[in-house]
Amino acid sequence: MPEFLKLEKRETAQTTFLDAVPSKPAGIVVSTESALGRILMKHVIAPSPLPPFARSTVDGYAVRAADTFGASSSMPSYLNVSGEILMGTEPDLEVESGHTVLIHTGGKLPQGADAVVMIEDTQPFGEAEIEVLKPVAEGQNVLQKGEDVQPGDIVIEAGTRIRTQEIGGLMALGFTEVDVAATPTVAILSTGDEVVPPAEDPGPGQVRDINSFTLSAIVEQAGGLPVRYGIIPDNAEDLESAARQAHAEHDMVLITAGSSVSERDITADVIAKLGRPGILVHGIALRPGKPTILSVCDGVPVVGLPGNPVSAIVVSGLFVLPAIRKLQGMRGPEWSGSVGATLTSNVSSASGREDWLPCRLIVTPEGLEAEPIFGRSNLIFTLVRAEGLVRIPAPSTGLQAGEQVEVRLF
Amino acid sequence: MPEFLKLEKRETAQTTFLDAVPSKPAGIVVSTESALGRILMKHVIAPSPLPPFARSTVDGYAVRAADTFGASSSMPSYLNVSGEILMGTEPDLEVESGHTVLIHTGGKLPQGADAVVMIEDTQPFGEAEIEVLKPVAEGQNVLQKGEDVQPGDIVIEAGTRIRTQEIGGLMALGFTEVDVAATPTVAILSTGDEVVPPAEDPGPGQVRDINSFTLSAIVEQAGGLPVRYGIIPDNAEDLESAARQAHAEHDMVLITAGSSVSERDITADVIAKLGRPGILVHGIALRPGKPTILSVCDGVPVVGLPGNPVSAIVVSGLFVLPAIRKLQGMRGPEWSGSVGATLTSNVSSASGREDWLPCRLIVTPEGLEAEPIFGRSNLIFTLVRAEGLVRIPAPSTGLQAGEQVEVRLF
Repeated sequence: MPEFLKLEKRETAQTTFLDAVPSKPAGIVVSTESALGRILMKHVIAPSPLPPFARSTVDGYAVRAADTFGASSSMPSYLNVSGEILMGTEPDLEVESGHTVLIHTGGKLPQGADAVVMIEDTQPFGEAEIEVLKPVAEGQNVLQKGEDVQPGDIVIEAGTRIRTQEIGGLMALGFTEVDVAATPTVAILSTGDEVVPPAEDPGPGQVRDINSFTLSAIVEQAGGLPVRYGIIPDNAEDLESAARQAHAEHDMVLITAGSSVSERDITADVIAKLGRPGILVHGIALRPGKPTILSVCDGVPVVGLPGNPVSAIVVSGLFVLPAIRKLQGMRGPEWSGSVGATLTSNVSSASGREDWLPCRLIVTPEGLEAEPIFGRSNLIFTLVRAEGLVRIPAPSTGLQAGEQVEVRLF
Repeated sequence: MPEFLKLEKRETAQTTFLDAVPSKPAGIVVSTESALGRILMKHVIAPSPLPPFARSTVDGYAVRAADTFGASSSMPSYLNVSGEILMGTEPDLEVESGHTVLIHTGGKLPQGADAVVMIEDTQPFGEAEIEVLKPVAEGQNVLQKGEDVQPGDIVIEAGTRIRTQEIGGLMALGFTEVDVAATPTVAILSTGDEVVPPAEDPGPGQVRDINSFTLSAIVEQAGGLPVRYGIIPDNAEDLESAARQAHAEHDMVLITAGSSVSERDITADVIAKLGRPGILVHGIALRPGKPTILSVCDGVPVVGLPGNPVSAIVVSGLFVLPAIRKLQGMRGPEWSGSVGATLTSNVSSASGREDWLPCRLIVTPEGLEAEPIFGRSNLIFTLVRAEGLVRIPAPSTGLQAGEQVEVRLF
């Protein structure tokens, strides 16, 4: 009784699905200071140069470089100190040959000067003179005007996810507001006749709803707004009615199917009715996550997730999170970080199936160890005990204790 | 004119400072669904077992394992089907020897049964009988009651940062509210007579404030609430008055010192007056970040950050972020993810100084490449162009093109 006629490779499933996910976000304007994690809608073009003027990068003396040529401690150059550049002001001094002015880090280079001698390479001489003990080249210890950014430069591309440094860059250019993608709303439907809300005491044979809440957290991390539809009874009519409403009202729909074959069949039938092109992938050569359904129905991605909470989390990391980013117009790869560690036990895997194995990280004097957590895949505390996942590629039949592995952090 | 008598090693600086940062957060109760990223105040102890009852992990037939011993396709065991377990209900059936009941994934194992035969390993026989084609062992395809969690188990430790799976685990146990650390407030003071708010047009010699906003973003990412004090004039009186107020009112204080030596001296003098033990580290063998000041003054961490925006971001990742986590009682290491890549150019570094080098990641057919960004360290767009930082350890004098490096993602 094979449930799936054909299991798709994880990579193919990802490409097929993500290619079909639309990327035409609505735009909104937000204050730059609240834009962390948002996706930029338009290229940011520099209106002015950065730095806005030539600046000293050291504390020292602004000079004409030619005045210092050949200077050494045995044969210093002597320069007259004709003043000091005050921070944040336009220098009213011009440096003429044989003269210099005191300047601080970040100070504006005065007219006539083309370099700065570090204060450590000078020595006071008499009342108003210094000895320069080392030559400087033209431009030395100076940040030129526009060295970071020139007016008209595309400094941040549309589709960029805004990090700390993008906030800094926007502020440096005076952009206190920014065009970003509106927050996509993501409907979450939980199914299962045995599932009750977490606040209730489960009766005999009942368990609490986990998936609605773990999926909400993942949606938020991806920049979406989760909208929970609660627990839908396991029958085609109720599920279809809830799914149609969710599909009409939101940018994406997640349905955690019940775990049994019949419940999964209901979910697939309902998704197939929601629009075109409909189901793109049903069944992936992946553990956990085999019964995943990936679809786009009339422009709205609809994902049928396995009911067991560990699968739902792992599958969401692979398919749901990148889809929510794409809905917001994010471009470019999303890097996910790993740490290297030594595997502590042998792990077997079926060839042809990609496995994601939860592991604990253990600090030892010999380095980091990755200890596989051999819980059953449907136990949520398996993931509570884990720092990350080790991928066992599809062609592999397993990994050996002592092997060096990459633990993909949650 | 050496500015620092002794540069501390980065590792020593980190340990000295973080050991002195207090970890006695105030607790608050929040809804579990809003607790993502919060630090748990108390151990979570399981009030009940998980799973709450023995459950089938497959679709199949609940049996007495002994009834299937020796079963094969040529010599099946025959069992009478006496009913079906409905999801979410207490089975009113008892499985006697020679009998079986239909059960779905997640269904409660009925009395008498001790294993489940997968439906694929059975065949209908007549009206109300099945053939079992493969034996099962006792417990096979069954999740035992309490297999994930036993009542009284510490399932999540105090000091844990709440991730998606902790939300799932809390919900599974019925904890819809959770004790977490209150959000620490972190005052941010920017200094520099040349610095103006981003919304203003900088006059000659002026630049816009970046650090107040990048530091705010970092504080938020660490779970703190940033409180911006704005731009403080570069004189001891104004800075001391603002710093005293910030120190009295908040859990942590960040001061981005001006870049010149005299401004940094003012910052150090002011911090030294704020309380005991006071300055712990002043000057680190680190680039960027040499002039960093690390202190704890009467229980409040006060950090003097370099004025240049790149240093401020890098230093904050190393010292400020872990300090804010510790203020909230976080225990255990904070893992930061990397990706491996091949360095594209030679990079030199002073032996004895740890360098953090901004790099772009480039996808090539041969694999990932890390391209160092050789901007000056004080240009914010250097970091906008970078995906992460490569650490050059203190003893090293540099890295070679072609070397395999770890790019620590931002």
